Amino acid sequence: MTYTLVLLRHGESEWNAKNLFTGWVDVPLSEKGIEEAKRGGTLLTDAGVLPDVVHTSLLRRAITTANLALDAADRHWIPVKRSWRLNERHYGALQGKNKKQTLDEYGEEQFMLWRRSYDVPPPEIELGTEFSQDTDPRYAGEPIPRTEALAQVLDRALPYWDAEIVPDLKAGKVVLVAAHGNSIRSIVKYLDDVDEQTIAGINIPTGIPLLYELDEETLKPTTPGGTYLDPEAAKAAIAAVANQGR
Amino acid sequence: MTYTLVLLRHGESEWNAKNLFTGWVDVPLSEKGIEEAKRGGTLLTDAGVLPDVVHTSLLRRAITTANLALDAADRHWIPVKRSWRLNERHYGALQGKNKKQTLDEYGEEQFMLWRRSYDVPPPEIELGTEFSQDTDPRYAGEPIPRTEALAQVLDRALPYWDAEIVPDLKAGKVVLVAAHGNSIRSIVKYLDDVDEQTIAGINIPTGIPLLYELDEETLKPTTPGGTYLDPEAAKAAIAAVANQGR
Repeated sequence: MTYTLVLLRHGESEWNAKNLFTGWVDVPLSEKGIEEAKRGGTLLTDAGVLPDVVHTSLLRRAITTANLALDAADRHWIPVKRSWRLNERHYGALQGKNKKQTLDEYGEEQFMLWRRSYDVPPPEIELGTEFSQDTDPRYAGEPIPRTEALAQVLDRALPYWDAEIVPDLKAGKVVLVAAHGNSIRSIVKYLDDVDEQTIAGINIPTGIPLLYELDEETLKPTTPGGTYLDPEAAKAAIAAVANQGR
Repeated sequence: MTYTLVLLRHGESEWNAKNLFTGWVDVPLSEKGIEEAKRGGTLLTDAGVLPDVVHTSLLRRAITTANLALDAADRHWIPVKRSWRLNERHYGALQGKNKKQTLDEYGEEQFMLWRRSYDVPPPEIELGTEFSQDTDPRYAGEPIPRTEALAQVLDRALPYWDAEIVPDLKAGKVVLVAAHGNSIRSIVKYLDDVDEQTIAGINIPTGIPLLYELDEETLKPTTPGGTYLDPEAAKAAIAAVANQGR
């Protein structure tokens, strides 16, 4: 027997479209992102994968994606759990900045280090500024970061995986995680035992459910890397993500 | 000190607009209903009423209303709880029937008895038919009804009120309940000690938050009947609801 996990990166947001570093800034889906989210739900239905519970971040692009996908899949009524631990990577002082301008300003090497190194975070965001979260009520009392590399994302996502997601899996529930490029990459790294170099080259496409069947003993994937419910579209989208900021 | 409760009836659904008995049939919001839901969220923001937790039924018109209102109020990230016990009244064999045709077929007296009597339910719905819920996975294992009058709605809503909503109120949370005309009427009847005759004349407008401040000792409203966040619109909408089916 296996457990079923579905990872879903939110559809395109207004800032994806504008090529800005978003991180924890709570921007909405673009019109294209709304359509991607609905299609994600249709792909679930077509594959006969019906989530019993959904876990989301605290950011509206993931929450709206979950809402729209589940409505399209006629599973809008399932239980919902949310946590900041599923949020996108905190991009520190880069939040709100244009990716192309950042590339031009800091050069290819520093840019790629911030974007893709495993454990070198951007500079910390200044508190009390436009794109910081220090007065946001949704994080009150939580030990939230001021910047993160992928290593820190995994560090804060893993306690939530163990405490909240694993129990749902072990209860036999089909679990949907609606989250972000980097919080999903951190889970993929953990599940597939991807090394720190290789994870830099793994991109997650928006709006295409990534299905994992997990061994009931080890909770490791029976098919490493999982299976995208639309493999052709995933392949094309992955190539596009890799070229962001160019 | 008082506790804060907000009751929100879903925006207009496609079947409200078509004048059909809906009950537990899971129809979506109309375009008008989508706008009403968003405006409900704006009214919350304008009044400074910020929900800390939302309770919804298992029907998409209430779920979508909650999603849209909370997104408009920047509270999309709050915890969510759902239960069939907040569903609309089960309209039995009338589900899917036109209200005007039902009025013509059965006459004014029977029609008003089904619509507004406290404890005379319509005939039970036949299992395995188009508008019955007996094979719907969201109700699996639950003691769901085949028809209800308002009395039965209160009977099944009250255990949820006691077990799930009261603890959130007592924890000091601002509680939003996104539900339906009759599940909200049953809560109003209970909170305001409305008698069986008077509740027949109380209608709940769609999309306008109804705010109750509850005494911390008695959990009874400090202002009987609560306060609509847009009193003028509520008054006009209540008059319109009362004329449905005419």
